[in-house]
Amino acid sequence: MKDKIKVGYIGIGRRGKNILKNCLVHMDDVELTAICDLYPPALELGRSLIVEQGRPEPIMTNDYMDIINNDEIDAVIVMTEWAGRAEIAAKTMYAGKYAAIEVGCAFDISECYMLIEAYEKTGMPLMMLENCCYGRREMMALRAVKEGLFGEIVHCDGGYHHVLPEEELFLDIESEKKHYRIASYINRNCENYPTHELGPISKVLNINRGNRMITLSSFASKSAGLKEFSKKLLGEESTYSNIDYKQGDIITTVITCAGGETIHLCLDTTLPRPYYSRNFTVRGTKGMYTEERKVMFLEGMEEGIENNEKEMFEKYDHPLWAEYFAEGIKGGHDGMDWLVCRAFIESIKRGENTPIDTYDTVAWMAIAPLSEMSIAMGGAPVAIPDFTKGKWINREPVVEGKYCLDKVCVDKSVKI
Amino acid sequence: MKDKIKVGYIGIGRRGKNILKNCLVHMDDVELTAICDLYPPALELGRSLIVEQGRPEPIMTNDYMDIINNDEIDAVIVMTEWAGRAEIAAKTMYAGKYAAIEVGCAFDISECYMLIEAYEKTGMPLMMLENCCYGRREMMALRAVKEGLFGEIVHCDGGYHHVLPEEELFLDIESEKKHYRIASYINRNCENYPTHELGPISKVLNINRGNRMITLSSFASKSAGLKEFSKKLLGEESTYSNIDYKQGDIITTVITCAGGETIHLCLDTTLPRPYYSRNFTVRGTKGMYTEERKVMFLEGMEEGIENNEKEMFEKYDHPLWAEYFAEGIKGGHDGMDWLVCRAFIESIKRGENTPIDTYDTVAWMAIAPLSEMSIAMGGAPVAIPDFTKGKWINREPVVEGKYCLDKVCVDKSVKI
Repeated sequence: MKDKIKVGYIGIGRRGKNILKNCLVHMDDVELTAICDLYPPALELGRSLIVEQGRPEPIMTNDYMDIINNDEIDAVIVMTEWAGRAEIAAKTMYAGKYAAIEVGCAFDISECYMLIEAYEKTGMPLMMLENCCYGRREMMALRAVKEGLFGEIVHCDGGYHHVLPEEELFLDIESEKKHYRIASYINRNCENYPTHELGPISKVLNINRGNRMITLSSFASKSAGLKEFSKKLLGEESTYSNIDYKQGDIITTVITCAGGETIHLCLDTTLPRPYYSRNFTVRGTKGMYTEERKVMFLEGMEEGIENNEKEMFEKYDHPLWAEYFAEGIKGGHDGMDWLVCRAFIESIKRGENTPIDTYDTVAWMAIAPLSEMSIAMGGAPVAIPDFTKGKWINREPVVEGKYCLDKVCVDKSVKI
Repeated sequence: MKDKIKVGYIGIGRRGKNILKNCLVHMDDVELTAICDLYPPALELGRSLIVEQGRPEPIMTNDYMDIINNDEIDAVIVMTEWAGRAEIAAKTMYAGKYAAIEVGCAFDISECYMLIEAYEKTGMPLMMLENCCYGRREMMALRAVKEGLFGEIVHCDGGYHHVLPEEELFLDIESEKKHYRIASYINRNCENYPTHELGPISKVLNINRGNRMITLSSFASKSAGLKEFSKKLLGEESTYSNIDYKQGDIITTVITCAGGETIHLCLDTTLPRPYYSRNFTVRGTKGMYTEERKVMFLEGMEEGIENNEKEMFEKYDHPLWAEYFAEGIKGGHDGMDWLVCRAFIESIKRGENTPIDTYDTVAWMAIAPLSEMSIAMGGAPVAIPDFTKGKWINREPVVEGKYCLDKVCVDKSVKI
């Protein structure tokens, strides 16, 4: 077991900066050996975040191949924009390093196959840093599912019901660069951000381990919100107020699974609304969990039950979270950023596969291009590839330990 | 304008009994001239509900043609089971009478065409008694939409998130007959009950009056809840515990509209859950309504806003409801049963079309057979017929008065 993991870090934008600042620079067993960004001020910001914590001066480069070719480095974390991430991750794996990528999707299904090939040829794991898989509510529901409290699971919902902030749509508030997200809204029409919901749902439904996603159908509403938002914010004359955005305001996606379950997803980022929850919902024959209502509903509870979160956390908190609370929450997004980074680092230290593995990562990345196809064909169902090539039927969880998302494990040897 | 409307009433089951008891027998301008049921105790119950209120003795028959052929009768209300309703309604129209049918769908699309033909040949209106169109929340949202408070409408949701009671699934509690609903769950797999949501949504989206539904796609989860519910309730040995139900537990339906809007519906009746709402949701470029959260969200409100229903009712209550409150709520289901019956009766008195008209009724009834087709074809989109044959493009609201659902009207001449 390795004591110290040497990490190369590529991409120090809004999200890259936060993970660095809130999580990685505070981990004693992580050395940020080299950092990379094309934009000099971002690179300088990354450096200062590291040295401010008394950590060694990192190598700085604007060529990510300097990081991938560096033999000292154990793992590469890819926090760049959506486009091109898969290529960087695949090169990382061919260089014999663990790869992690930030939340997001592929543009084309070929990126998914490229990553599968890299994994199968090298054995080096790829992990999407899907923080919501380590959310407290999601993990409580996961525990309840794995312990059979909800009976047979039949259906799940989730939605990214989050009005994107102006700086993610129109300008990067710090660098004055356009944020890459807007390019997708101008040019594409798809479920571009499903994994905050689909990640936890996949683990609930044993996707790639006894179950798999079979078909996907997506539907786009018209696009009206972004233009109106821009007019209000930037004025009628702004370039952003005069674009005919391809991206529909509300994208509804339905996935059917081999086990007979259905998944309903919603992308909802450009119309005014309150941000209540990601509508993470698990439905079974004996009970349900609804994040929207903060209710875990089990047999014998009264029909009108409202928010029972406090009581349910006391009874059914996931052991990882029970321990995390005792130790004190760290990092951003209520602590789940920290946990997902720890899950990655612990896998490298133990030389094991990652709890969100290459097949998981790739299956989730495939949603955007598949939904784009389905929308383009008027909602026709499209087949979701079996990236495991049949191995899903008999695949067991390959990871033990407290970060495992395929069963509930307690492992006293692993530090949070 | 007619003073008194003579009604023939067919079907006195669970629902038929309630509408009779809570609404019709209390209306001074309604005479229940004849009643019909195949089951003698139901017929006797109907009679006693009428005479107990000091109303004239009704004609009693077990042949609905006695009612349809009775020249005294102005209108027939069809409260029979789902199967066969369309035929009774069409015969009613051919007999020159107004027809109303209880909430429900067709089994086959030919029933829809039969009703359209009956309407276009006779000019006699058909109205589905979709009570939720007259719900207070739905009408407040409708008013907000018609007044432009939500901006351009982009998407709507709704769901029948209501665990069916055992007496609607396994036995008729009063008559010991099987309830007809179970036959559908045993034999079909479809969105069998969409109109509580789709009715109000149609009115929000101007369906059949400037807009129409173009495609429908439906998806069924596996069927696991009903068998488990029966085992728990009736034991492992019960017939109901040993049926392989065709009906999936969760049916997700997506409808696309000519105006670019999407509609997401959910049928959710056989898995344990609390009954919070029908998730009636309207999304626009300037605001939203969510029944689930009891929030009307308008520009300038804070992002975390919770239940603001009281304040919103004070500001935006529909004028019909404002008046109804002042006069005192009547009838069942929080008063909306009363209003939908009044809407029908007032249309007959004024000799006008009904506010939920034949095209509306038929478009909604078509959802079940269309969703059955789509599910059978793995979620393939199916075309929704244009029952108006192009008239939707220029159709104006044909009804004035306070019961109008196509615009907000105040009419002091009409009594609630």
